[in-house]
Amino acid sequence: MSRPAVEFWFEFASTYSYLSVMRIEKAAATAGVEVQWRPFLLGPVFLALGWNDSPFNIYPPKGRYMWRDLERLAAKEGLPFRHPSRFPRNGLLAARVALVGAQEGWVAPFARAVMTANFAEDREITDETVIAGILGDMGLAAAGVIARAQEDANKRALRVQTELAAELGLFGAPSFRVGDELFWGNDRLDDALAWACRP
Amino acid sequence: MSRPAVEFWFEFASTYSYLSVMRIEKAAATAGVEVQWRPFLLGPVFLALGWNDSPFNIYPPKGRYMWRDLERLAAKEGLPFRHPSRFPRNGLLAARVALVGAQEGWVAPFARAVMTANFAEDREITDETVIAGILGDMGLAAAGVIARAQEDANKRALRVQTELAAELGLFGAPSFRVGDELFWGNDRLDDALAWACRP
Repeated sequence: MSRPAVEFWFEFASTYSYLSVMRIEKAAATAGVEVQWRPFLLGPVFLALGWNDSPFNIYPPKGRYMWRDLERLAAKEGLPFRHPSRFPRNGLLAARVALVGAQEGWVAPFARAVMTANFAEDREITDETVIAGILGDMGLAAAGVIARAQEDANKRALRVQTELAAELGLFGAPSFRVGDELFWGNDRLDDALAWACRP
Repeated sequence: MSRPAVEFWFEFASTYSYLSVMRIEKAAATAGVEVQWRPFLLGPVFLALGWNDSPFNIYPPKGRYMWRDLERLAAKEGLPFRHPSRFPRNGLLAARVALVGAQEGWVAPFARAVMTANFAEDREITDETVIAGILGDMGLAAAGVIARAQEDANKRALRVQTELAAELGLFGAPSFRVGDELFWGNDRLDDALAWACRP
């Protein structure tokens, strides 16, 4: 009997998604669980909750804490981290490209490179030349990938995926689903993998 | 050189505080770290953030997730759990009594009994007879303890402690402090203890 996969719902603007993007493939491989990458946009999900910005900006004490927490967690995991000069950065283009990458099999290294640009190198991931540079470094034909990412069908697919996120009860990122079971936050990645391994 | 203590900031209405109250003494003893119990009230802290109720009630998807998460975590830790018929329950009286208990050395077992009443037995911890019953079961003279808890100086001390919580940057419970380092959430208890043990 095969194990259920873990659906990994993430957003490129999300700080705690950075931590999960960087470690999920290794953790899942160790657990013997397949990862299904589900890029989506937090903006519409947050708007439905009444937030027109990141809650880390709306609620300053939460924001101050989050940046320190992230610094500590990155140090603990040996990940580079630099406080981005702009937060949140719009992850729309990166998410569209990631959706193409999920179909073509290169989403994991692409997501790691974008997250590193945003949270370790303070680069503008909204900038098409930054995304094109990442794709080029991966040996992909950047112009063609970005053209596929901007096709109407792919734009629509990201909208549908984001609507689905809200319908499934997601309210933040990263989130993980195993069957109908929802886990929220980088702190729950190991619990989600353990759930997938239950007999 | 002695280790710094961990300050444990908790609220009796808080679901994730339940998990920490039940396990902190054992975890801290294993780590060789002293626990300083800091009961406070989330209500005024939340009001300052613009919330006039628990965020788990204000944001239904967060609430639905929290109850399922709590159920899973309680099962994982072998803790009894019953979805309370009222949430949040006002923790004012229990917090005042806990403040007396922190001075007199019985706060830990008192807090565990109140949390069990609220989250495992669905009892009304706002009810003075419930609190008196818990104190009596602990072999304490309930009427005298409750009278001390309701003295002006003790009421003021809880207000001061709650104001201090906000000044220290707390925005939820449970929270832990080690020196100036803040950790939020039951998920960070082990990190807080590890921080206290750093060389």
